[in-house]
Amino acid sequence: MTKTRSEHDLLGDLEVPADAYWGVHTARAVANFPVTGTPIGRFPFLVRGLAAVKQAAALANRDLGLLDAARCDAITAACAEIRAGALHDQFVVDLIQGGAGTSTNMNANEVIANRALELLGHEKGDYARLHPNDHVNMSQSTNDVYPTAINAALTEAVDELEAAMAHLEAAFARKAAQFAAHLKVGRTQLQDAVPMTLGQEFGAFAVMLGEDRARLRESAALLLEVNLGATAIGTGLNAPAGYAARACAHLAELTGRPFVTAADLVEATQDPGAFVHVSGVLKRIAIKLSKTCNDLRLLSSGPRAGLGEISLPAVQAGSSIMPGKVNPVIPEMVTQVAYTVIADDLAVTLAAEAGQLQLNAFEPVIARALSQSFAHLTAACRLLADRCVDGIEAHPEIMAERVASSIGLATALNPLLGYRMATEIAQEALRTGRSVPDVALERGLLTPDEVRAALSPERLVVSGG
Amino acid sequence: MTKTRSEHDLLGDLEVPADAYWGVHTARAVANFPVTGTPIGRFPFLVRGLAAVKQAAALANRDLGLLDAARCDAITAACAEIRAGALHDQFVVDLIQGGAGTSTNMNANEVIANRALELLGHEKGDYARLHPNDHVNMSQSTNDVYPTAINAALTEAVDELEAAMAHLEAAFARKAAQFAAHLKVGRTQLQDAVPMTLGQEFGAFAVMLGEDRARLRESAALLLEVNLGATAIGTGLNAPAGYAARACAHLAELTGRPFVTAADLVEATQDPGAFVHVSGVLKRIAIKLSKTCNDLRLLSSGPRAGLGEISLPAVQAGSSIMPGKVNPVIPEMVTQVAYTVIADDLAVTLAAEAGQLQLNAFEPVIARALSQSFAHLTAACRLLADRCVDGIEAHPEIMAERVASSIGLATALNPLLGYRMATEIAQEALRTGRSVPDVALERGLLTPDEVRAALSPERLVVSGG
Amino acid sequence: MTKTRSEHDLLGDLEVPADAYWGVHTARAVANFPVTGTPIGRFPFLVRGLAAVKQAAALANRDLGLLDAARCDAITAACAEIRAGALHDQFVVDLIQGGAGTSTNMNANEVIANRALELLGHEKGDYARLHPNDHVNMSQSTNDVYPTAINAALTEAVDELEAAMAHLEAAFARKAAQFAAHLKVGRTQLQDAVPMTLGQEFGAFAVMLGEDRARLRESAALLLEVNLGATAIGTGLNAPAGYAARACAHLAELTGRPFVTAADLVEATQDPGAFVHVSGVLKRIAIKLSKTCNDLRLLSSGPRAGLGEISLPAVQAGSSIMPGKVNPVIPEMVTQVAYTVIADDLAVTLAAEAGQLQLNAFEPVIARALSQSFAHLTAACRLLADRCVDGIEAHPEIMAERVASSIGLATALNPLLGYRMATEIAQEALRTGRSVPDVALERGLLTPDEVRAALSPERLVVSGG
Amino acid sequence: MTKTRSEHDLLGDLEVPADAYWGVHTARAVANFPVTGTPIGRFPFLVRGLAAVKQAAALANRDLGLLDAARCDAITAACAEIRAGALHDQFVVDLIQGGAGTSTNMNANEVIANRALELLGHEKGDYARLHPNDHVNMSQSTNDVYPTAINAALTEAVDELEAAMAHLEAAFARKAAQFAAHLKVGRTQLQDAVPMTLGQEFGAFAVMLGEDRARLRESAALLLEVNLGATAIGTGLNAPAGYAARACAHLAELTGRPFVTAADLVEATQDPGAFVHVSGVLKRIAIKLSKTCNDLRLLSSGPRAGLGEISLPAVQAGSSIMPGKVNPVIPEMVTQVAYTVIADDLAVTLAAEAGQLQLNAFEPVIARALSQSFAHLTAACRLLADRCVDGIEAHPEIMAERVASSIGLATALNPLLGYRMATEIAQEALRTGRSVPDVALERGLLTPDEVRAALSPERLVVSGG
Repeated sequence: MTKTRSEHDLLGDLEVPADAYWGVHTARAVANFPVTGTPIGRFPFLVRGLAAVKQAAALANRDLGLLDAARCDAITAACAEIRAGALHDQFVVDLIQGGAGTSTNMNANEVIANRALELLGHEKGDYARLHPNDHVNMSQSTNDVYPTAINAALTEAVDELEAAMAHLEAAFARKAAQFAAHLKVGRTQLQDAVPMTLGQEFGAFAVMLGEDRARLRESAALLLEVNLGATAIGTGLNAPAGYAARACAHLAELTGRPFVTAADLVEATQDPGAFVHVSGVLKRIAIKLSKTCNDLRLLSSGPRAGLGEISLPAVQAGSSIMPGKVNPVIPEMVTQVAYTVIADDLAVTLAAEAGQLQLNAFEPVIARALSQSFAHLTAACRLLADRCVDGIEAHPEIMAERVASSIGLATALNPLLGYRMATEIAQEALRTGRSVPDVALERGLLTPDEVRAALSPERLVVSGG
Repeated sequence: MTKTRSEHDLLGDLEVPADAYWGVHTARAVANFPVTGTPIGRFPFLVRGLAAVKQAAALANRDLGLLDAARCDAITAACAEIRAGALHDQFVVDLIQGGAGTSTNMNANEVIANRALELLGHEKGDYARLHPNDHVNMSQSTNDVYPTAINAALTEAVDELEAAMAHLEAAFARKAAQFAAHLKVGRTQLQDAVPMTLGQEFGAFAVMLGEDRARLRESAALLLEVNLGATAIGTGLNAPAGYAARACAHLAELTGRPFVTAADLVEATQDPGAFVHVSGVLKRIAIKLSKTCNDLRLLSSGPRAGLGEISLPAVQAGSSIMPGKVNPVIPEMVTQVAYTVIADDLAVTLAAEAGQLQLNAFEPVIARALSQSFAHLTAACRLLADRCVDGIEAHPEIMAERVASSIGLATALNPLLGYRMATEIAQEALRTGRSVPDVALERGLLTPDEVRAALSPERLVVSGG
Repeated sequence: MTKTRSEHDLLGDLEVPADAYWGVHTARAVANFPVTGTPIGRFPFLVRGLAAVKQAAALANRDLGLLDAARCDAITAACAEIRAGALHDQFVVDLIQGGAGTSTNMNANEVIANRALELLGHEKGDYARLHPNDHVNMSQSTNDVYPTAINAALTEAVDELEAAMAHLEAAFARKAAQFAAHLKVGRTQLQDAVPMTLGQEFGAFAVMLGEDRARLRESAALLLEVNLGATAIGTGLNAPAGYAARACAHLAELTGRPFVTAADLVEATQDPGAFVHVSGVLKRIAIKLSKTCNDLRLLSSGPRAGLGEISLPAVQAGSSIMPGKVNPVIPEMVTQVAYTVIADDLAVTLAAEAGQLQLNAFEPVIARALSQSFAHLTAACRLLADRCVDGIEAHPEIMAERVASSIGLATALNPLLGYRMATEIAQEALRTGRSVPDVALERGLLTPDEVRAALSPERLVVSGG
Repeated sequence: MTKTRSEHDLLGDLEVPADAYWGVHTARAVANFPVTGTPIGRFPFLVRGLAAVKQAAALANRDLGLLDAARCDAITAACAEIRAGALHDQFVVDLIQGGAGTSTNMNANEVIANRALELLGHEKGDYARLHPNDHVNMSQSTNDVYPTAINAALTEAVDELEAAMAHLEAAFARKAAQFAAHLKVGRTQLQDAVPMTLGQEFGAFAVMLGEDRARLRESAALLLEVNLGATAIGTGLNAPAGYAARACAHLAELTGRPFVTAADLVEATQDPGAFVHVSGVLKRIAIKLSKTCNDLRLLSSGPRAGLGEISLPAVQAGSSIMPGKVNPVIPEMVTQVAYTVIADDLAVTLAAEAGQLQLNAFEPVIARALSQSFAHLTAACRLLADRCVDGIEAHPEIMAERVASSIGLATALNPLLGYRMATEIAQEALRTGRSVPDVALERGLLTPDEVRAALSPERLVVSGG
């Protein structure tokens, strides 16, 4: 039989396991929200963000003479341990929860209070000495703590994703350099267009990622504005003068990030705009990653009845029935990740639009969606780089052959012959199965030198700037 | 200078053009909602639906002794004219409007009242004789008229779309028959799989459409349940006993469709579930159509550096710079239509979720989304059949060549050799550029007869059932 | 040091833990797809579905003389164990995976083969005796096994959700009966409309759920059509004549559900239409649940500065800073669940539209989305019934007071006075702060008896039918 | 009988109306894409953007000696006329079109060529003198012209929307000042929280708009990067050295906006990232506007059975059946506009993700979605300001009364009494129907002076900073 201790809330008394760091409020929430089976402790950035905010608040309260040194030291030490990775298994409330994050904040208050009590040499649950609400939550409300903690968590997630994107970008850039000399047929609308190099094609993948990284970095700046000190609705009730500034300064110092207090705390407390914005950027990244992976799948289609211009490395057998089949499983996984990110952006959209009056009650599902999207995208970028892009091989001979027979070469004759005549040549080449230069020469419209000049690789694939 | 007449509402008096059939309520709404520039009159099904509901209501009111014969006849005649196509240009309110459709209902009341007054030999605006609210809207509320009219409109739209889908289905089925003998490489995950016929491929397009048609027809049944008689919130206040049943019966007779009164009118008045359901089915149709068109684009990619198994008919020049280029513009258009339908389904979702208490105030945007989606899909199906599918040509020689060289043939040897050995053969064929039967024969694993039997077209493409 | 055994695939040899039931293909997939951290084993319906399909296939292969009795018995016994709940921890591949479910199928093949080998008294990995691909996967492909297993899983999920919905429906129906006599102001567009009873309001919630249950049940019928026997692309290659029918019959018998083989297996193998349809129905359910919960939150707003017509039971303290605050946390949780379902429907949409040619490679993300949505909705319905609806209390005195003062009563005078005069009375009542009947009486427009009759509860809230 | 002239394309000869400025390519497209009924001419920003790009290209071609002065002057003059508003009715192709915008570009080429021919004194259709493709489209491809024109169009649309948002922001700010002294109960999760002023509430609406404007302005910077000079796929084939820079410079000068050429034209030609980003920002604006309008509807709910803290101005009669009812029709319209914007963002998402290889073929539906969203949002902001916000009135006495009785006042006693004791007081107040200060005083926990100080408006609503 598990030993328990008794705790009290507005519903009455409740027994909680004696060794649990969490208490009555957490226990109520666990019973109320058995939804996804995924507790907040599974998202370390969020737990660390909560601990950082609590630590910053304690220091600010001490600075202002509200919290004595002993309690402050104990709270601070507990928070530092959690930020270092301890006690995450005590954050047991489901990510999806009613109450606008109150249960998450209560969970943090209780774990920190009980660990602080332990450090002070007291029993867990001895809240008369150090109280989850009166001391750990002093000068705070869920409504400023929770979004601030999410902001802190997401700034970490941004760093991690950005590094993964840079890793993938470098992989594509290496391939672009490696494939710089391979001439191939460019395609628009899946129809043969004009020539380019495979290096240009892979270079575009790298550039796209670089641009998306820049957008991600920009959006992260919005996360630095926090509403800590707003308390319940932004009026700062129960937070003393000077608290907001000091708490924010401590948070910045603890995390090494330049957090600032929002100018209008009433607005900041109800506005999930920064989350919407970041989610929109993640969606953009997902869109581009999926497009890139779709291209990789197209270019490697075959091996014999497809485009077959590149081969992706085999990372597993492709079929339980078709021996020797190799499938583009890594790009397929990335595209599916992209779909989850786009879907999660819709969850963020729905939740953000549903905010009412002084608060958005649906921030937990926003936190879940963003946490998932960051984690999924980070994994996808690294797996794509390491298990796919790095091992891609080109088939230059196939590409060269297609350039020579391409109808798109007629485009290069356009300035010499005009659109209407070039169209006739293209149509004849297509009808007869011959090459565009052959048809043009035969008709005596151009000299061999003119054709050679018009179709030189230098002219075909180097932008006129 | 335009001649005007004066009308009155709770805001006071207002001049409206003397020759307008609409009146003060419509004029207010036109001023309040200049949003999309698209008036409800652009959606004839909706206008006809409104007129049918008004006509049914007038007949029910007459049956119950509430409306005298003269007024009923005039209202009925006006409605009949509108249902036949008249006066649609008098339905001038923007499709997107606040007020849960009140302005649309008011617009209908006013146009019908004024046309009825004309038919009775009176001046427009002489509402003491026949009043838009007291007579045309008798026993009614926007909250039952508007959704019922949308239901009536959508049943027409369903018929139109279903016919267009059947037209497209027949086009695909004709091609399936025409292409029944062309053996080709089937593809999974864009990689060569096992053989099939082009007829099977096109047959699947036809079957998919048939299944979607069945779903559409099913969903249309939900539209037959109406809340006419519910008045403001479903309690039927101001609609006399017997009215709901009679109005519904008249509506059924007028439209030739078996409308029935919802069992719980309070529920029916607030619940846009049928619209959500129909929209979901349209989304499903869009998804499949887009997939089909993506396949057509893939299969016709080239002409020389793509799959090139089929050619789509050229319907316009493909490029302003690339002479002779022909693009799959019809499938591209259809896919874009699909995106608008999927997007409009989201608008329906958002609006449906936002309903509050006894009414969904956002039905106008639902009506707009559904009207657009039906119209777009209907056009897309017909254009795809007539301007693309009918003219598709196959290239059987290209397909046959690829079957012969396909690595996927190793699958057919699987039952004879086992998965592991068949994998080795496939890998050797791929590495050496040779065919699977050649490698198998050379290794002495099978006799020529065994190979021939295993790879006969009959065995390859006919389901074992 | 962990003991290992060596296995082989097209990439070469690989050591796997000696006690693992999974093998080389699973190991590759685990390394390739560390994305969500949630393995397929977390979804018991899916694991059971896989085992049922494998068992049905083995029995069909035995019937047709392809599989000897000993191997068949061993495979069958292993599948039966898994269906009973064993070995789910051996299904370790991430739910999001490339390869169209191949890794899930391979994982199942390997676990079943190794358990069967054990039952036969052999070592794990001794595939020469019983092979994951040649025997467990005999006559099968991922491309028919995986979707069929999802279908089987979802039919179980439908049952579970339907029961939860019925449970919630009953809770609302009980409240509807309990609140049948409480007269209140109905509201449209958040503005006071005409009277109704609180019982009618709660009755509508019950009816809505009932209708959604009917739609869910309908949609489940689509899941009974399976493509088992299609093998790789629907041509049934390597599945002998008679196999499809027998495998389907065994599946039906094992699961007690009337599965049937799709008429066109090529179509069925590439078409995720049933998943799209079911997902659309889940979205519809989510929309309605969220609307219902939004209503509960509105009606219970307060306690003193809101509508305050009902109280939700307190299930936890509402705030870390505001003592005594009680929040509608259960409805808030349900609404967030609804957002995840709507978002997951978008993931299904994106994945379904992205299918190409003979297969949809993105079924894993569809399986994940649907599995999540079913689980979340089932939990939400039960929690809403048990932790919220059952404990709702009404405040009839507040509601009655508002009916007496309501401007909406003017509507009931409409048939007696006409729309224009009733409008004037309503405006005067509003301007002067008096009641509608008082103003009407004072103006001498109606007798006290007429007013009493017009405003009797019987007339106000009983539909005229 | 209409007079016609004959034109030629790769499909053969076609008669077009003699007085049409458009020609054969446009005629084909009109026949191919009768989808939405809305021609591109309905979007003046897009038509002007096309003309600006064509004019810039002509000037660059002249600078480089490719285009003679006479033709350049004629083309330039035609473009200037179109930019000034002429000939928009000649842009007749449907907004939704296959071909990646080719038909739009062809339409522009033809209209400009024929108007230029006229200005030169020639007949329409006399393309030997001035050719739509060889001269108007010289050095260009649809694939650089079309996205550049969209960019130019959207920069105009951004200006227009930003002005409308500033207009609305100012309206809210005026109300914030007007309502600065009105104390009221703030609400979180629809439950009474702690006091604030109505001015703070309206101030938050203004601040939110200001932040969204800043994001819009930021995103507009992405539109200044164009791919003009990329021609078909970004390699610049057929655009001479120096062309891209000169064309861009001319475009910047003509439009007064600092357009720059993208660094990597291959990437820029296939990447609709800027459109995705701008669409995401529009979605964010929509989310906030809808939230704001939902708040306005909540706060004005009633008039007697709702929150009733403010009244929105009546702009039309609210009901066809309920006399005197006034509904929040303008906020309802805005929320529906928000739903269309969120839906259109999904269309953009779907289209952007579907891009393949060197081009996104689905830019037309992106252009449509963005054009609609900008137009709808601009209209909504102005209508909301002018027809709703400006006329809002407050009811301070109702708000004051609720503050006095609010349970939320217990929060202010928290620092004095601790969370647990304050909870007890709140619960007693609620149970007994008395006020929080009364209960606190009666229990002798605080002196009247302490209570007065704790509950002074200054302390309650002024942030501690």
